[in-house]
Amino acid sequence: MKIALGQINPIVGDISGNSAKIIDLIEKARHEKADLVVFPELCVTGYPPEDLVLKPKFIAENLAAVERIVKSTKDIAVYFGFVNLAKDNLYNAGAFAENGKAKEVYHKMNLPNYAVFDEKRYFKEGTKGSVVNYKGTKIGLGICEDIWVEQGPYREEVKRGAGIILNINASPYHIGKVKEREALLKARAKKNKAFFVYVNLVGGQDELVFDGGSMVIDPKGNLIAACDQYREELLFVDIEKDRLTDWRWLDEPEEIYRALVLCVRDYVGKNGFSDVLIGVSGGIDSALTLAIAADALGREHVHAIFMPSDFTAEQSRRDSQELCANLKVELAEIPIKDIFARYLDALMPHFKGKPANVAEENLQARIRGNFLMALSNKFGWLVLSTGNKSELSTGYCTLYGDMAGGFVVLKDVPKTLVYRLSDWRNRDKEVIPKAIIKRPPTAELKPNQLDQDTLPPYEILDPIMRAYVEENMSVKEIVASGFEAKVVEKVAALIDHSEYKRRQAPPGPRITGRSFGKDWRVPITNRFNEL
Amino acid sequence: MKIALGQINPIVGDISGNSAKIIDLIEKARHEKADLVVFPELCVTGYPPEDLVLKPKFIAENLAAVERIVKSTKDIAVYFGFVNLAKDNLYNAGAFAENGKAKEVYHKMNLPNYAVFDEKRYFKEGTKGSVVNYKGTKIGLGICEDIWVEQGPYREEVKRGAGIILNINASPYHIGKVKEREALLKARAKKNKAFFVYVNLVGGQDELVFDGGSMVIDPKGNLIAACDQYREELLFVDIEKDRLTDWRWLDEPEEIYRALVLCVRDYVGKNGFSDVLIGVSGGIDSALTLAIAADALGREHVHAIFMPSDFTAEQSRRDSQELCANLKVELAEIPIKDIFARYLDALMPHFKGKPANVAEENLQARIRGNFLMALSNKFGWLVLSTGNKSELSTGYCTLYGDMAGGFVVLKDVPKTLVYRLSDWRNRDKEVIPKAIIKRPPTAELKPNQLDQDTLPPYEILDPIMRAYVEENMSVKEIVASGFEAKVVEKVAALIDHSEYKRRQAPPGPRITGRSFGKDWRVPITNRFNEL
Repeated sequence: MKIALGQINPIVGDISGNSAKIIDLIEKARHEKADLVVFPELCVTGYPPEDLVLKPKFIAENLAAVERIVKSTKDIAVYFGFVNLAKDNLYNAGAFAENGKAKEVYHKMNLPNYAVFDEKRYFKEGTKGSVVNYKGTKIGLGICEDIWVEQGPYREEVKRGAGIILNINASPYHIGKVKEREALLKARAKKNKAFFVYVNLVGGQDELVFDGGSMVIDPKGNLIAACDQYREELLFVDIEKDRLTDWRWLDEPEEIYRALVLCVRDYVGKNGFSDVLIGVSGGIDSALTLAIAADALGREHVHAIFMPSDFTAEQSRRDSQELCANLKVELAEIPIKDIFARYLDALMPHFKGKPANVAEENLQARIRGNFLMALSNKFGWLVLSTGNKSELSTGYCTLYGDMAGGFVVLKDVPKTLVYRLSDWRNRDKEVIPKAIIKRPPTAELKPNQLDQDTLPPYEILDPIMRAYVEENMSVKEIVASGFEAKVVEKVAALIDHSEYKRRQAPPGPRITGRSFGKDWRVPITNRFNEL
Repeated sequence: MKIALGQINPIVGDISGNSAKIIDLIEKARHEKADLVVFPELCVTGYPPEDLVLKPKFIAENLAAVERIVKSTKDIAVYFGFVNLAKDNLYNAGAFAENGKAKEVYHKMNLPNYAVFDEKRYFKEGTKGSVVNYKGTKIGLGICEDIWVEQGPYREEVKRGAGIILNINASPYHIGKVKEREALLKARAKKNKAFFVYVNLVGGQDELVFDGGSMVIDPKGNLIAACDQYREELLFVDIEKDRLTDWRWLDEPEEIYRALVLCVRDYVGKNGFSDVLIGVSGGIDSALTLAIAADALGREHVHAIFMPSDFTAEQSRRDSQELCANLKVELAEIPIKDIFARYLDALMPHFKGKPANVAEENLQARIRGNFLMALSNKFGWLVLSTGNKSELSTGYCTLYGDMAGGFVVLKDVPKTLVYRLSDWRNRDKEVIPKAIIKRPPTAELKPNQLDQDTLPPYEILDPIMRAYVEENMSVKEIVASGFEAKVVEKVAALIDHSEYKRRQAPPGPRITGRSFGKDWRVPITNRFNEL
């Protein structure tokens, strides 16, 4: 049997565009004499459609699109995801259609309602597996989470004689996820002695990155077909004949870097923007953000601005210029010194002689935020902000200042990983100047300021942050794993007390098992004491 | 039987404080010779604890507190809510304890996972009702949602002989909610011929307001006891003897106003602030926000600042002064004219002769935002921002400008309701100057600007917004209900395109059936076309 894997990048809510793309690929697959073409979970609506599915008009349009798709299946079969409506209940559904007719509709049985998922908010669970007979072969149907569950429908379907299991997905990326999926599918295929055809979405949707990497595993547990990560593909596989040798998924720094590139490109493009604006400081976060943006959008769509103050070192200007020259990105400069002085004059009578504190520091960041937003409003450029996960965890960032913007590229990237990604981007030639990488991190908001005056060194901070945020470990457990109690307590307190800032942060790509997005639902008003 | 209703205001995460309060009230109830004291749903942890329940330490501390509470029940019984852990599953649970021993633990059977609720993210469903024998009476146990469900556990419990049903709640406020609860409970009590004892939380938790209004209904459907709305209370009721005549819940403008006051007081206080700062413009939104803040915190804890520009009318200053004089709130002034001019000078070479647009308008709002935040950072005052729901719906507000702040008091209050609340606040004497109420709304960001130049009149906009946002009606349905198609289409498009702003808005009190909070989960990247 010749199966086509339709690894597509739909846009949430663009039902007519998504269904036109699906119909077009069905036509291409028929032309290539495929027997069956498989598209991802909820590919008609895009994933996750969130509260849009509560709109009856949205459901009706999605059902009308399903009819069009089903009608387009002449001399070919298709299995694809949509939202079904039956007896006033919504289902995360898959339709198997053949020769213009829907042969079977499967309702997802295992609805994830943890981490970034809210499927029980919208959908009712299906109650049974589905097996279709097609060209003499029994094919079992399933959707995403179904395959992760030990008692998933594939077991029942295999018992009913299915030799092929189709599993369609909207499986969000996190570091190493594709290898986890491969290992799971190999185990399932071997144990159940069936082909497992796994088709995933690709593309960015707000904070989520869908990394593609669709694949087919044979009943012996061999990977016999694999789609690229991070791009649309219609891949044909003759499951009885085709074999795959030497397949390699992307390795870690590249895997992450390309997830960020895709998410930036899709957030910008799907929201109707062409150009972005980035405030470059001479630091590594804005340098990496600029490189990712240039790779995502093309350097001519990226605008950089340098906004020095009295506390800005001459090195910051030089390094920013070199960075922009390397990337061939246009660099403008607006000094903030005068305006800062005016603010201080205006505030003097109100500050009543109080000593300088974070107020003066934040003010500088906010003046920069104002310039970025003014240019954004004037030219329609989306501002990419440049904070990282270490900063956002600990609150080492300024609301409406460096946090201002439409998208934070490094929102889920800890500082130590910022360095790894920068080194990787420099692998062939120096794009991010070495001087930027070598220089000790500084916010340059007061004289001789270093991040390390306020925060533990990032090599210590980051693993503690990861343990606390991503692994949900307690302070006690983290200390027991080998960190100094005082440091762990400090980091945990910083994280706990910064929730109000995170609540107003722009969205940004999720690349870990727990980002500060839908998978982090922590009250602002919260007296729980970790210590 | 003498029952005490423990309508308390716990703090999320403050397990030791909450349990100490519960134990103290148990002691008071015993002193008053009550047989039984009832506390709200999850009162040990506060509600909603969100992802805190994923921390094992949090669960363990909550269980240790349960033990302390249970031990404190000498010569009295108690029913109260906590998080139970059984066979690796978490339950939203209620413990019935008597004489130092837990007699019964009930697991909530109906877990809401819609609107603001995510209970299926955390808890497993219980599978059966619970009936306890206490002093010769059979008492049935339940939690919140259980009572709203036609096939709730109370039916089974009544069949098993329960004459009293205890239902403990963390039921968030929306307009008119207490009367809905009363009608439901009366119907349930009559049909099931049992006493229904309904105990609710009181207090603000981030965006949610819990309004209290605990009550007891007799088997004939009479309200025989009721707690006040919006305050903590330990109310005693002898269910065989006590009768209530002439009870009135608060009427609508007051009901809403006091919900806002409570939520502001709790957000400020529970987060460790004492004082707030408000930018007053001479408009009605900032005036009402100031009045609510003064009522919530005391005028001496409220600081007002007026920040005029060239576009600010003299009337705005005069009205702001009168408002602050009426409320006896200290008023400072910082003009933004000079700084605005400096920004324009700095931007001139970059704006490249482009005509003035929203960039210049937003810049003024952002300069004001900077001053507010500078004073906040200097003095530790929480900034209350002054937007309303009509503005936040349509995007008629500036990110990092008038949207800057820790809490938006009127986030869920449409403009027409702002007027109603202002009139109500003025019922005894004029606090908000009539001139402010009468003046046509203006953002004063360019010459002779009026809201109505950009938006439909609020008397038209607000009902359309409510239908679209709160009732989830389609454009077509709203037009059919009697609005001009072009206007409805414009409002829907404004709402759809402003999601990115709302995502970065501060939290604010929820007072309707659908606020722009956890009950509004709409993708930013969204091509769904309502038209």
